[in-house]
Amino acid sequence: MVRALLLVAHGSRMTRSNDEIRAMTERVREFSSDGYTLIDCAFLELADPSIGDGIERLIQQGADRVAVLPYFLAAGRHVAEDIPAEVNTKIAEHPSVAIELLPYIGTAEAMPQLLADMIPSPDSEPAA
Amino acid sequence: MVRALLLVAHGSRMTRSNDEIRAMTERVREFSSDGYTLIDCAFLELADPSIGDGIERLIQQGADRVAVLPYFLAAGRHVAEDIPAEVNTKIAEHPSVAIELLPYIGTAEAMPQLLADMIPSPDSEPAA
Repeated sequence: MVRALLLVAHGSRMTRSNDEIRAMTERVREFSSDGYTLIDCAFLELADPSIGDGIERLIQQGADRVAVLPYFLAAGRHVAEDIPAEVNTKIAEHPSVAIELLPYIGTAEAMPQLLADMIPSPDSEPAA
Repeated sequence: MVRALLLVAHGSRMTRSNDEIRAMTERVREFSSDGYTLIDCAFLELADPSIGDGIERLIQQGADRVAVLPYFLAAGRHVAEDIPAEVNTKIAEHPSVAIELLPYIGTAEAMPQLLADMIPSPDSEPAA
């Protein structure tokens, strides 16, 4: 069983922003290599690869199970409609591969705590 | 000293998506009420209040220090240009209020681990 993960981000016209997603993908590899042979990223728009191409590439590399993780914070149109549409197309094309769409990260149990940890202590000086 | 936090999200045409942000704001209130008298949210576009109106509202409620936390994952145009522009307008309008723009949440140290925790165990069955 070759398991694969595809992190799906929105994509930006700014190369630096897309490179951030690639760097985050690299860090997820470090945190969760256990059991996942392939971990890569794809973009809904404005950057390559597309979601379909990203899934396709993982399958060509031998994945027989692909988990798609939307790197999105709320279930707007992209999460509710656009990403499922692209994933469903690939599911139809590859009936022998288990392709599953995971919940978007805005639903993570740890998110409120992560946000709270970003807030400066009430005693701190304002940033310059 | 009345400290305030404004969580800034993108905004969506889908009401449910904006309501998610409001619910997350409520959860952040639970996690970090300590020292922050006011915690609210605002939207870059497609939903109300705007960032400017959100900051204004906090100041009208007595805030003399406002931290703005971008609920964004990567530094695309919105994070790099649009949000700072709106915040800077308010800084210019309210020289007696300490308004500071915090790093966007994609930079959180805990983010790679949060992502890794979203990935199903390699032994789990695919979702139906």
